[in-house]
Amino acid sequence: MSHRYQQILDEIFSETKDLQGLGRAADYIPQLAKVNPDQFGIHLQLLDGRSFWQGDAKVPFSIQSISKVLSLAMLIGNPEGEKVWSRVGVEPSGTPFNSLLQLEYENGIPRNPFINAGALVVADQLISTFDAPKQQLIAFVRKLANNEHIHYDEAVAQSEKEHGFRNAALANLLKAYGNLTNPVEEVLDLYFHMCAIEMTCEELARTFLVFANEGRIPSSGESVLTLSQTKRLNALMQTCGFYDEAGEFTFTVGLPGKSGVGGGIVAVFPGKFSIGVWSPRLNEKGNSILGMKALELFTTKSELSVF
Amino acid sequence: MSHRYQQILDEIFSETKDLQGLGRAADYIPQLAKVNPDQFGIHLQLLDGRSFWQGDAKVPFSIQSISKVLSLAMLIGNPEGEKVWSRVGVEPSGTPFNSLLQLEYENGIPRNPFINAGALVVADQLISTFDAPKQQLIAFVRKLANNEHIHYDEAVAQSEKEHGFRNAALANLLKAYGNLTNPVEEVLDLYFHMCAIEMTCEELARTFLVFANEGRIPSSGESVLTLSQTKRLNALMQTCGFYDEAGEFTFTVGLPGKSGVGGGIVAVFPGKFSIGVWSPRLNEKGNSILGMKALELFTTKSELSVF
Amino acid sequence: MSHRYQQILDEIFSETKDLQGLGRAADYIPQLAKVNPDQFGIHLQLLDGRSFWQGDAKVPFSIQSISKVLSLAMLIGNPEGEKVWSRVGVEPSGTPFNSLLQLEYENGIPRNPFINAGALVVADQLISTFDAPKQQLIAFVRKLANNEHIHYDEAVAQSEKEHGFRNAALANLLKAYGNLTNPVEEVLDLYFHMCAIEMTCEELARTFLVFANEGRIPSSGESVLTLSQTKRLNALMQTCGFYDEAGEFTFTVGLPGKSGVGGGIVAVFPGKFSIGVWSPRLNEKGNSILGMKALELFTTKSELSVF
Amino acid sequence: MSHRYQQILDEIFSETKDLQGLGRAADYIPQLAKVNPDQFGIHLQLLDGRSFWQGDAKVPFSIQSISKVLSLAMLIGNPEGEKVWSRVGVEPSGTPFNSLLQLEYENGIPRNPFINAGALVVADQLISTFDAPKQQLIAFVRKLANNEHIHYDEAVAQSEKEHGFRNAALANLLKAYGNLTNPVEEVLDLYFHMCAIEMTCEELARTFLVFANEGRIPSSGESVLTLSQTKRLNALMQTCGFYDEAGEFTFTVGLPGKSGVGGGIVAVFPGKFSIGVWSPRLNEKGNSILGMKALELFTTKSELSVF
Repeated sequence: MSHRYQQILDEIFSETKDLQGLGRAADYIPQLAKVNPDQFGIHLQLLDGRSFWQGDAKVPFSIQSISKVLSLAMLIGNPEGEKVWSRVGVEPSGTPFNSLLQLEYENGIPRNPFINAGALVVADQLISTFDAPKQQLIAFVRKLANNEHIHYDEAVAQSEKEHGFRNAALANLLKAYGNLTNPVEEVLDLYFHMCAIEMTCEELARTFLVFANEGRIPSSGESVLTLSQTKRLNALMQTCGFYDEAGEFTFTVGLPGKSGVGGGIVAVFPGKFSIGVWSPRLNEKGNSILGMKALELFTTKSELSVF
Repeated sequence: MSHRYQQILDEIFSETKDLQGLGRAADYIPQLAKVNPDQFGIHLQLLDGRSFWQGDAKVPFSIQSISKVLSLAMLIGNPEGEKVWSRVGVEPSGTPFNSLLQLEYENGIPRNPFINAGALVVADQLISTFDAPKQQLIAFVRKLANNEHIHYDEAVAQSEKEHGFRNAALANLLKAYGNLTNPVEEVLDLYFHMCAIEMTCEELARTFLVFANEGRIPSSGESVLTLSQTKRLNALMQTCGFYDEAGEFTFTVGLPGKSGVGGGIVAVFPGKFSIGVWSPRLNEKGNSILGMKALELFTTKSELSVF
Repeated sequence: MSHRYQQILDEIFSETKDLQGLGRAADYIPQLAKVNPDQFGIHLQLLDGRSFWQGDAKVPFSIQSISKVLSLAMLIGNPEGEKVWSRVGVEPSGTPFNSLLQLEYENGIPRNPFINAGALVVADQLISTFDAPKQQLIAFVRKLANNEHIHYDEAVAQSEKEHGFRNAALANLLKAYGNLTNPVEEVLDLYFHMCAIEMTCEELARTFLVFANEGRIPSSGESVLTLSQTKRLNALMQTCGFYDEAGEFTFTVGLPGKSGVGGGIVAVFPGKFSIGVWSPRLNEKGNSILGMKALELFTTKSELSVF
Repeated sequence: MSHRYQQILDEIFSETKDLQGLGRAADYIPQLAKVNPDQFGIHLQLLDGRSFWQGDAKVPFSIQSISKVLSLAMLIGNPEGEKVWSRVGVEPSGTPFNSLLQLEYENGIPRNPFINAGALVVADQLISTFDAPKQQLIAFVRKLANNEHIHYDEAVAQSEKEHGFRNAALANLLKAYGNLTNPVEEVLDLYFHMCAIEMTCEELARTFLVFANEGRIPSSGESVLTLSQTKRLNALMQTCGFYDEAGEFTFTVGLPGKSGVGGGIVAVFPGKFSIGVWSPRLNEKGNSILGMKALELFTTKSELSVF
């Protein structure tokens, strides 16, 4: 069986060669523009402990929006955290990920916690719920990853702050609608740090294995979410994990997942595995071209999709 | 095991009593307004042949938009049919089901085949692909259902036509964008008939079992869709099956499904079962209140969701 | 003084030579596509009876949307007609002239009577108010023009009907919102006829002189509108007469006016004159390029604008 | 003649008694909430030097958005200032005055300089064009008013800053689109000061008389705008001066004008007069109820409208 998975990963690499060089890496901040855009890694982590990888799976990258799943998980794992559902929806947005339009149209209630506006509300609720949210968030992520080296890339966080006018617009608009309790600057600081977490494909897959394991961290057995919460988080990834390409990902890949503008994508098969891929060149929707294709090929070849 | 499922269905009926009488049945056409709104039925059909039911599971009702899955399945089962994907998307709409707004904003390409505009394009493609689409569609449905009695309710179809100004607006707009090949009147006639198919919960569950069975009709063994096509159809139901409440359904129920304004809902667990529920009173999004709750309770109690 | 005006018209013709050939004539119906696009005419009609012209001022063309002012004038000249203001607004639309989007967003109440949706509501109210609206409208226009030869171009009307899917979409949507009393087909027939009225620049200027004359037809002295109604009609032309270019026209020309997709534009200076221009090549907003420029030059040179 | 005008102002006061108490004063900042909402003043200033007034015409109030006309006038009076037209349009917005939606939809180019986004761009251009814009703006206004006492109300400016999250959102969004050259904080500071200018009805009418006088300050004879610029500024007030009620104002009043959320309205009749009214209670569009009615009655009774 393990042989079969390794073979699939190898096939994915050879069959996607003609897609290499397509698309452009994100360059809105210098730190992302500096990354070699031609890297490509994949790491498959089974619940039974086995793992398979190919390419640049040990190279760290900025996970960006993928962190929105982790901050939401930490939040709803706290008894106070579920309050957030009165402040943010669970519907796919149908519009690009940083749209103010929808926020205005819907009176300051973000469509879901994975668009930027929704993640800002989650950050705000984290500040209200935890004493030292920035420290506690990274500690939570390290616990999931079973890895003390996971960290914020401060240069990325700083750079996001300097170029984050659109996120500042979103935060101010949320504040205008009364859907931000803490000061705009403080919420943005936590948000920009979240987006600046750095991981490798391997670390990403290991971190997300908890969502394939009914909310229990495989390395420690600790439960951070209930079964029901885990299912709901996976459901959210399925419908809202890929900006306005969530339907396409569900249609072609058929797994809950989350992408980031750094080129990373993670997907989960409940009860079986998690898989992390990374390649910086993006399609026009902001999702990794090789990453999307790799996951489509993986579920087609393995016939492992939730549908 | 069977005992457990019957018990769950019974519990659902007793635990939803306080929701009875909430919401209003659709009344935009007289035929729907005439239905007793306080009916409630559920039918669970396992792939192993066993079935369980409760309430008004043998009462026929108008399946309305649920038929959009069936017309799409017939279309893509034909070699010519997949052409439709250049004319319609696979993304959740994020707006109410009959919105012209999005269609205009996106230049005549409907978001997905389960909103009205998308289903009109599917109907148009059916007319271009089949010789006698109206007869062949009902024959296809009868084959899936293994039931020669499934039929169009002509009074409903006629009534839809007389009150269907919004659908006529959609069809004319599609025509203006060049995304309708056949005459507007002809497309609307097929569309209004599709929506007027009548079924019971039992028939509905049996008809949809094909999507839990990798595209093979359980009663005959005939394959009408490939495994990949079946997975994609299920994925579409997951992200687009509930108008602008698809996220909520995915979040709380966690199964691919499709609802209709007649109060019916069908859901599918790939490899395991299909389930049909019906109760005419709707929430403000146009989905059956008791039906939504029944399915939430079913997946919570049975711990059977794809996530 | 007359000499000065003739000189201005001559200057306009020589100074706009470099704009000739820019833009494209409307070609969505064959009848409009057949017109020689390089024609250019202008006719200035003073209230004191003098007139000045240049170019193709005696060539008839399809006035198209300009007729929306005339149908509204006939309607509000009738005691029953002012009822229309509960069914249509007086605000500029800010969006293209045939947008369904705004109509849906604002629940079926068109922004103003000069966008297509608004003119359809005016047509509907005409049908409800007059016994033979199609005959009475052309009679009303002939009376204003003091010209029995004004007529509907039936070939244009027929062609509009065959290609008018977007207008059919608008009419059906209005019907769905309950803002159309008469049958969709009947309203569209009157609407398509209105748009098919044919006039020369000279006839256009003479017809609209009534709005520069406090509502009295200069040729006969008959009052068709009160002073207040006339001012309001002029005000509407100022804010809503040029689709989503009304601000630009007001900014650069500074007169109330109305344009049509056939390339005609008419403008009015209350108490002084009316002016008709025509040239079929349009800018991307659907307004005549030479017509817009001619009127800008006219008001700049003559220093005659209402502001 | 003068007698007639005084009589009209008196009639306006007696005929609007039943509207008193309708609507609510703006209260989004404490300074506006503190104003006695039942005040009502009007001041008519003729170009020949005569003036007429009634009610609270000598009570200072916060002119708020009315200042947008003054900052734009100062800007375009400078040779560099007309550059602003590449950064802002001249079309009515068709949406509420502080909408981010339209700004996003149109890629960061505000519809016109009188919506908040447009006025922020004007403020930005003022900072780029003038050495000490805040000081020079108030000096410019004092020159127009022939009154050294006109000043910024610092408490209002400070309060706007503390509650101005929506304007901060707009400024950040403009910055994200590259349509703000100077730091967000600096632009907002100038903007909030502009809005905090205080005037009486009398001062307001005298300040705006320059726009009825072809761009020449009546008290000094100095030209601050050309005839053409003045006509265009008046045209802009006509189409864009009343948020999404510009059509209504044009329709019922028929003069170029500008309103502010403090309850002030000013209108201009080119070649004849300017008129300032003030009453804090607003309709749902944010315009003074008594102010709108007073101006409608004034132009109806005097038969003085530009149409």
